[in-house]
Parts: sequence; structure tokens; C-alpha cells
Amino acid sequence: MPAAPPLTDDTPRTYSYLGPSGTFTEAALAQVPEAAGQTWRSVNNVGEALDDVVSGRSVAAMIAIENSVEGGVSATQDALASIPNLRIIGEYLVKVQFALVARPGIELEDVHVVNAHPVAYAQCRNWLEANLPTHGHIPSTSNVASALNLFDSDLADAAIAPARIVSHHELQILADNIGDNQNAVTRFVLVSRSTTLPAPTGADKTSIIAELPDDRSGALLELLEQFSTRGVNLSLLQSRPIGDALGRYRFVIDADGHVLDERVADALMGLRRFSPNVIFLGSYPRADHAPVEYVDRYDDEVFIEARDWLRGLVSGEPEA
Amino acid sequence: MPAAPPLTDDTPRTYSYLGPSGTFTEAALAQVPEAAGQTWRSVNNVGEALDDVVSGRSVAAMIAIENSVEGGVSATQDALASIPNLRIIGEYLVKVQFALVARPGIELEDVHVVNAHPVAYAQCRNWLEANLPTHGHIPSTSNVASALNLFDSDLADAAIAPARIVSHHELQILADNIGDNQNAVTRFVLVSRSTTLPAPTGADKTSIIAELPDDRSGALLELLEQFSTRGVNLSLLQSRPIGDALGRYRFVIDADGHVLDERVADALMGLRRFSPNVIFLGSYPRADHAPVEYVDRYDDEVFIEARDWLRGLVSGEPEA
Amino acid sequence: MPAAPPLTDDTPRTYSYLGPSGTFTEAALAQVPEAAGQTWRSVNNVGEALDDVVSGRSVAAMIAIENSVEGGVSATQDALASIPNLRIIGEYLVKVQFALVARPGIELEDVHVVNAHPVAYAQCRNWLEANLPTHGHIPSTSNVASALNLFDSDLADAAIAPARIVSHHELQILADNIGDNQNAVTRFVLVSRSTTLPAPTGADKTSIIAELPDDRSGALLELLEQFSTRGVNLSLLQSRPIGDALGRYRFVIDADGHVLDERVADALMGLRRFSPNVIFLGSYPRADHAPVEYVDRYDDEVFIEARDWLRGLVSGEPEA
Amino acid sequence: MPAAPPLTDDTPRTYSYLGPSGTFTEAALAQVPEAAGQTWRSVNNVGEALDDVVSGRSVAAMIAIENSVEGGVSATQDALASIPNLRIIGEYLVKVQFALVARPGIELEDVHVVNAHPVAYAQCRNWLEANLPTHGHIPSTSNVASALNLFDSDLADAAIAPARIVSHHELQILADNIGDNQNAVTRFVLVSRSTTLPAPTGADKTSIIAELPDDRSGALLELLEQFSTRGVNLSLLQSRPIGDALGRYRFVIDADGHVLDERVADALMGLRRFSPNVIFLGSYPRADHAPVEYVDRYDDEVFIEARDWLRGLVSGEPEA
Repeated sequence: MPAAPPLTDDTPRTYSYLGPSGTFTEAALAQVPEAAGQTWRSVNNVGEALDDVVSGRSVAAMIAIENSVEGGVSATQDALASIPNLRIIGEYLVKVQFALVARPGIELEDVHVVNAHPVAYAQCRNWLEANLPTHGHIPSTSNVASALNLFDSDLADAAIAPARIVSHHELQILADNIGDNQNAVTRFVLVSRSTTLPAPTGADKTSIIAELPDDRSGALLELLEQFSTRGVNLSLLQSRPIGDALGRYRFVIDADGHVLDERVADALMGLRRFSPNVIFLGSYPRADHAPVEYVDRYDDEVFIEARDWLRGLVSGEPEA
Repeated sequence: MPAAPPLTDDTPRTYSYLGPSGTFTEAALAQVPEAAGQTWRSVNNVGEALDDVVSGRSVAAMIAIENSVEGGVSATQDALASIPNLRIIGEYLVKVQFALVARPGIELEDVHVVNAHPVAYAQCRNWLEANLPTHGHIPSTSNVASALNLFDSDLADAAIAPARIVSHHELQILADNIGDNQNAVTRFVLVSRSTTLPAPTGADKTSIIAELPDDRSGALLELLEQFSTRGVNLSLLQSRPIGDALGRYRFVIDADGHVLDERVADALMGLRRFSPNVIFLGSYPRADHAPVEYVDRYDDEVFIEARDWLRGLVSGEPEA
Repeated sequence: MPAAPPLTDDTPRTYSYLGPSGTFTEAALAQVPEAAGQTWRSVNNVGEALDDVVSGRSVAAMIAIENSVEGGVSATQDALASIPNLRIIGEYLVKVQFALVARPGIELEDVHVVNAHPVAYAQCRNWLEANLPTHGHIPSTSNVASALNLFDSDLADAAIAPARIVSHHELQILADNIGDNQNAVTRFVLVSRSTTLPAPTGADKTSIIAELPDDRSGALLELLEQFSTRGVNLSLLQSRPIGDALGRYRFVIDADGHVLDERVADALMGLRRFSPNVIFLGSYPRADHAPVEYVDRYDDEVFIEARDWLRGLVSGEPEA
Repeated sequence: MPAAPPLTDDTPRTYSYLGPSGTFTEAALAQVPEAAGQTWRSVNNVGEALDDVVSGRSVAAMIAIENSVEGGVSATQDALASIPNLRIIGEYLVKVQFALVARPGIELEDVHVVNAHPVAYAQCRNWLEANLPTHGHIPSTSNVASALNLFDSDLADAAIAPARIVSHHELQILADNIGDNQNAVTRFVLVSRSTTLPAPTGADKTSIIAELPDDRSGALLELLEQFSTRGVNLSLLQSRPIGDALGRYRFVIDADGHVLDERVADALMGLRRFSPNVIFLGSYPRADHAPVEYVDRYDDEVFIEARDWLRGLVSGEPEA
């Protein structure tokens, strides 16, 4: 792998994101202080974004990893499982709100065909059925591309897009906030090649992808016990097919805490011993800044004390 | 809910499937002996297919539920979780093989834009990058619609579709078997409103969707123990967002065995007690006809003997 | 087995206990209202007491099963494991306090040899070492026999016995309350042949003896899960050798709750399926009358609802 | 604690054992090559034997810890739990066979009273009931003291003792091999103050005593998981009362393997973190020399690899 060009303070850094300008991904990138004033590179999909990181064209890429309504983003999860040496260094949440937008002069009753990214389309189905019961759908590649397509072709009369798109393009809002779920949120992660761990904050998350040993039932139970016996809670456990045969899965896992927390480190070692393939995706601050709660007996000091105790036994020191 | 019209032997039964003719879903439906010679109704998506079943327009619908490469079909899993009184009555596997097809006269070097369903497109990415490195992509709504679009518009030059489409339409194969994974398989289920259980065959599967109690860590571990303590193996465990907030999941579960197997029935009762919301999706023969393996001490007779023993204790009979 | 003679209200019932009069066992029997005014039969050991019950000579026997300092009474536990058709119908606690007693005229400085039951002797060791550092010990068969031996022979100068013995015999107390542990308590059980279950009180205990399947490691973990997955807490788990080979154990278990509690019944069925040999020793009110605490989701109604739900599934009823 | 006197090769070492000469304990000590030709000190009970070790009078003491019929030796287990800085350095098995012995001239039909250690007496009950149905019993303090008492007093006519006692004393065998269980074995351990670990042999055992955190149900399950999640099998789990209140227990545990085995070390650290009080009693070769069996994924190398992997993550090295 080619090394990234050395960065000086004067070199502008490049960040990749799913564009064009106006996407939720851009809104996520806007939450990263280090990215302010740097070069933002718009790409078409997760694959391109991660290629930029791997090749060194970008220092990091912002990619969607989960939506509160639609679930995990398979393409992202599978890419992180298959491209080596990537690390998640930050997590960001963006509230997902959709508007129906159109070119000036179009009224709601004129809308017969809607251009929309399939995921956005699925999230507005109730509103569409109630208000445009006979509409047709043309799929787009992003939540902004849907709107921009209105300028390129007459196939669609309106598009589903973030409302703020009307401040950048000559478009009007026909209906705002049309998502079926008012609390919809998308979770993004910032991915880089840096293997330097972000410092623990007490409100951290650790992401891993692990395969199960394939010849034993009860293996998932045992995987979970690696965490529970160290008092580590999981906020995400998602299965993804390994792809070689039906019924073979890997698991995408988010664990509370940082790998520099003793209990997390110990759980990861247990997982490594158990699993034929573990990918460490990083420890990083949680987007919600919620401090990790854990039981006292899983405190760092308890782990250190136990290690010292064992060291004493092994070295033949009498106990105090 | 309106009752389905009574069926006599003379009434043709209607089966819904994702069309148009030529799709993998149609190939799955062709595996159902009871559907032979009956009315097959082509629909545009999972929602329509299940609506047909709920309304009584169809006796059953064939829908894709999982692909060995792309994973669970979210739309199907979420629909089964939210529409009450549906039951899976059969499972079918279809090998997924894609061809690049075009209208007569088009050569591979003429292809600049490809029409393809996004899932199919993703499964052929390696081939496309190697053979059409500069192509564009237009998404379609099904693996057959992609090909039919070639007759409606000139936007695309070729389409990704099942190879057999060329026997129904004036199309030619530019390249066959272009999927990245030669073993790709899609799993389909036949869904009806009938609550009559298919008879146990010894090679059955039971599908459930269950939520976790939301206030306890370790809850997933406890859910899994409901199965492991009865010797019931799981072939699928997939999380899906409940949708009301980030971090809240339900689990789609396939367990080995039939609800009329004592060990499965006992596990389901345990799950019902534990989970605030359990949806029973049915017990049905496995597509692969592989007999369920289990340890002797989880045999039906062991359960029956234990129940008799307890009944004796409670009724005050002395033990033999 | 010969049937017990029929009891009428006029027939005095016989209760066996470890005598002679004055023992802690007698104090336990005095706590049984039904035994008041009936025939109390003094026996020499647990074996005789249980023989009386098996043969029908007594309706019940009071036997010590555990001491808070010395632990489980092996002879009792092993007898309950090997004699069929016995049932525990009640539990009683007796505070264990020892005095050093002697015949009139003997002073503490005259004591050179102490007669004492080995268990009592062990419980007074600290006092004896401090106050009679050079004494000798003669073992006796009960805590009262030790004192009565003082009248039969001159070998010992004093005896360890319950203080109240001086009100029945011409003895004096040289030192009272000489036990090393002021909170020592012995737990007794009343054992009968009746298989009629005592009514549940909400403060009950269920006693079982179970063997592990011998060919699997982790078997004890699985045994415990039979209880934990039904929310049943254990107050006692004691291993006893099966006796045929070193390393083979059965477990004496006290579980919170009554076999007529759904969660206990379900756990017992699970245990019966798992274990090659389960002995049900009875459900009976706890001596401390402490209501059993359990989590709501293990309530009887939850079990009944789950059973009804399953019955509905199996019978083909649509869910409400 | 006073230091033991320095040992030179010329200083005879002292070993304490439950005497007098002829006991099973002496037979166990005879199995220790290092004890051959040294000073053997006969003591009266476990307490004296361990006092010798603590005070430095002896380098080690041989004590019985478990009998295959009668179970754990409570006095030994409780002493090891309460006296600090003791270590088990070896394990020995002695087949337990009893004879009925008497002074010359006594015939079996002359025997009315039998002198016997209570544990030995219990193990011969069936033979005694069949052959001496009306006999009386006088308890003794050891299996040899019972026989020697025949020379001191006329109270008993015969004694239960190891048959080989007749080669040291003027006694004859009235009946040999009178134990109810022909396979009865007693397990002995050699206890010292040395904190130097015996070298691992691949056929080792590790003994621990641990208390449960007292405020949580399911605590024992969690204790066992500390071992099962590291693939460490237990050959002994025995509860003993802590002694302060009924229902509070500590557990005496024998685990397969040596503390210098990675999986055992890791389990012990987990146990130390979990338990409010852990006593390490030592790692030592098993008496039966049976190599410890464990699953490959718990091999030392797997632990070392996982630790190296974690170290790499924490230090920021890219993965290979």
C-alpha cells in the first residue's frame, strides 16, 4: 500500500463524503472541527469514499453506517469487513428529514412521478400513499441527485430531498417533513487509515467485526459471553453474510467503551481467541457523548489489581 | 379483516410474486407443486404481494427473504414484523446467476450505460469493473424490469438480468454468469394467511420475530439461552431496527425444528415469557430437506416423560 | 413397602427425633404444632429416624440437615439421596448454644477431660484452647449423651451440652455460651412419606437432589441455567459424592419457591430432562417465612399466558 | 510469622501426618519421594498438622481432603480457607480398605462393642449390620487409635482399622475388607508454606477457594463462567459455609491445569475480579497423572497471540 503523502500544517487535508453538496453525509462532515476549512471531496458511493482513504487521496471519509429506520448500511458494513487497515475515528448523528421539492411552477396536484433514493422513498411511503396515491417512482443514487435530476430530465415532476437543498438550487418545497418517522436519525462514521487511537473520553465506543467458528452451535452465545463476563455492553450486533454460502455470517459489533479500558481490552482478547477472524475497526468518542456505565467490579483498577495478584502468584511471592 | 373467499376445488387459486415473468421469484414459485396450473399474479414489490395475501386476493405470495451475498431483505423482514396474521408455509432456494443482455446488434464494446437492479448491480461489481471500467449505471426496480427498460428507452445499452430472459424477449446474451460469487443463492418464502401448520417432516424450520426487553443489558444473551437450553439451534439471527429510536432492535430468528417438536414449543414459550413482543411466523419444511439434528436428551419423549413426572409430583402420586 | 396404619383423630401419631430429651433436634420438633401432645420417639441417628418413617412406625422424623458453621449434614443428605419416597414437609431453625456442664462439686480448674459430640467440640475449640489449654477429649454420640455419660463413668470431668440440660439432670453450668460463633444455627427438616404437597405460602422452598450427565464438561453450568432461565434462585447447592468413584458427584439443591409455582415447575421439568437422576424431596414453607422474591416476568400468569399462546398456535387459531 | 530454619542438605526435614503409624495418611506420605528418610511427625488432627507447617516445625503436612464415599473433609477445607499462606504442593490417592481387628483370643462371636473412627464406622455399616447386628460403637480419633485403644481399655472388643496394623501390633484380623464400597479412595494433599510453584507437568490441578459476591443471584453461574469461557474444566466444586450466617457459602474448587497455563491464569484473574475473596491454594501434579484435556483454541499460543494482537492495536501498529 502506498504511504500517504506527509502532511504539514500548510497542506490542506482532503475529506471524502457522499455528495453532491447538500446530502446528509455533508451535514455529518460539517460536525467535524478538524475538517473545517479543508478540502471536501464529493464521491458517488461508499466504495469510492473508502478508495480515497486507502489510496491516500483523502485523510478520511465520512460514510453512513446505520439508519434508525432502515437499519445497518450493508455496503458500508461489508466494505469495512473486506478492506484491511481502516479505522473508525469518530461517530456523528444527523436527523433525517425529507421534503418533497419541485421546480418553480409545479404544484402538488401536478406530481405524477417522484424521483427519490430508494431508502428515502421507503421512509416516506405512508405520506406518499396518503397524498400521492397514484404516483410512480424513479430511483436515484443519492438524496440530492434526486433533486438535481429534475433539471436534467422531465421524467419526474418532484423529488424527495433534504429541505435545505432549496437554498442552493432553484427549487421549491411542496411539502416538508414527509418522513413516516419524525425521529429518524442516520449514524455516520469518519474512517481513516490512521492506527493512532483517539484518546479515551469515558464516552467511547469500540467497533469490531467477528466471524464465528463455523463448526459449533451455541457459538454466538459464546461470543456474547466474551463481553458479558467482562461487563461490556453491546449497542449493536448485526449479522452480515460472509457471502460464500447461505447460513454463514459475520457479526458487526459496537461495544461500549474504549480498547484502552481494561474490560474492553480483555473482552477483545477473549474474542480474538474465540473467533477465526476479528477485525478491529477502532475506538472513538460516541456521538451522543453519553458516559459509558458499568459495574464497579469491571473498573480498570480491578483488572490491574487482578493482574498484579496473578503476577505475585506466578513469581512465588507470598500474599500480603 | 375481510375473510378470504371460500375455495372449492374448482376455484383457481391466485399466487402473487415479484414480476414480471422471468424473475428469480417466479423461479421460486415454479417450485411449488400446489401453484402449478393456478393463477400467478405479478406484482411490483413485497408490499403489494403481502397486500394481496392480507386482502384475500391471493392465497399466498412468494417473496425473497435473504440472499447469500447481500443478506436479509429488509423490506420483507420489516413487513413480516408489522403486518399481523401472516404465516410462512414454505421455503425455496434459487441459485442467482446474472447475464449481461442487450438488444440484437449491440456488442460488448458498445455498452456505456447498464440498467440493473441495485442489488444485482452490487453482485456483479467485480466483473463490471474488469470488463466495463467506464460504464454508467441506471437503477431498475427488478431484475427483469432492467431488461425490459431496454425496449422503452435508449438511456441504457445493456441490462443485468437472468439469462433465461432471452427465451421470452428479443434479447441476446453479451456475457453470462457475471456475478462475483458463483454460489450466490436467494432464499424465498411462501407466505399465506392460513394458520394451519404444515405437518412436521423432521426437516423443518421455525421463524420468529422477537423484541428484547429494553431495560436490561445481557438481554440478547438471555434470548439465545431460551433456545440453547432446549437444544434448539438457530440458523439465522438478524437484527432489524424497531424504528422508533437508534439502538432499539428486534430480531428475526430462524430456529431448527417445528413448533410441534416439544423442544421448539418449549423454547417458544420461554421466548414468549421473556420478550415483550413475539411474532410467530410459522413452522415449515426446510428448502434443503436436511433433517434437523439434535441431541437425544431433547427428544420429544424426554419432554413428555418430564411432564408426566411433574404431573405425578403435583398430584401427589408416589414415584415408581 | 408396608402401608402405614390408618390414622384416626384418636390415634396418637409418632414423631422420631435424635434424642435423648434435651437435644437441639427435640427443640426443633417442639416447633411443630401438629406434633404437640403426640408420641415423640427418641432415636440414635439419622438412619434410625428415617427407618421409622419408611416402616410406618412414625409419621415423620425431625433430622438436622445443615449447620451454619459446620455445613451440610452428610449423613442426612446421603440418606435422602438413597432412600426412595421420602418427602420434606417442613423446615425449622434452632439457635445452637453450648455450655460446659459438670456434676455438682466440680470446678472449672478440675476439668481435665471433656466429653463432647465431635461437631460440638469443633464449634467450641477457641474457648477450650483459651480456657482449658491442656484438656483431653472423649467423643460422644449426641449433645445430650455427652452429659449423661458423666453419670456412667469417671473418664470425663465435664461435658459440652445445651445449657437447658441442667433443668432435667443434676448438673451445673461451668461456663455458658462457649461456642466460637455466637450466631450458629442448625437447620432441621421434618421428613415423612406423605406425597401430598404442603400448600404454597409464597414463602416456600423446594429441595431436589440431582446427578449430572457424566460425559460432559460444563454440565453444572447447564444445570444452574435450568433455574436461572426461569428466574428461580437457589439458596443451597452442595455437592456430595455419588460414592462409586472419586470425582462423581450429585448435587443437593434448595430452590426458592414451590413446585406449584409455574417457574419452579418449569425449572424442574428442565432439570428432569437434563439430569439422569433427579430426586424430588418436596416443597414446603421456609423456616424464616421470608416471601420469595422474583422478577415480574416469571410470574405464574406469564407462564399461563405463554402456554395459552402456544396452544393457540398449535391449534391453528389466528392471533388476536 | 517466624521464618523457617534454613535447610541444608544435611538437615533432616520434618513432615507432619495424622498418626499414629499405620494410618492411611502415613500411607499417603510414603508416596512422597522427598519424604523418604526424613523425620515423620505424627499429629492428632488437621489443625496440629497445619500448625506445624505455619510455625516452621515441619516443611510440609500430609492431610486428607476428600473421600470418594464420605465426600470433602470439612475440617481440612475450612482450615485451608482460614489459615493464610498455605500451599498444596502434591496430591496422593490411597485405597481405603478396612479390617475388623481384635486382640488374640477374641472370636467374631465375642464382639459386642466396636471401637472405630466415625468416618470408618459409617463406611462399614452394611457389613456391621449383617454380621454384628446388635453391636455397640465407641468412637475413636483415628483409624489406628481405634485399634490401640483395645490395649488401653476393655470397653471395646474389636476395632476397625487398616489391615496392615497387625504387622506392627499384637492384633489379629477377624474380617478383612469390610467396607461397604470396594472402590473407596481417599485423596490426600501435601501442604507447605513454600510459594514456589511446582513445575507444570501437563497433568496438573489448581486449587482455589472463592467467595461469591453476596448481593446477587446467579453469582455461582457467573463464577463457573469464569472457567468455562476459558475452556477450563472443574473436577471439584464444593460449598462450605463461611460461618457467619446460614446461607452464606464459599466454594472449594479444583480446576484442571496449572496457573502457568495461560487459560488457567486468565480464569484466575477473572475469578479474582469477580470474587470478594479468592484464596490460591496452589498448582500441583495430579495424583492420577492424567494429562489435562482441553480444546485447541484454549492453547497457550492462542492466548499469547491474542495478547500480542491487542498490544499491536494499543500501540498503534497497523495489522499485518
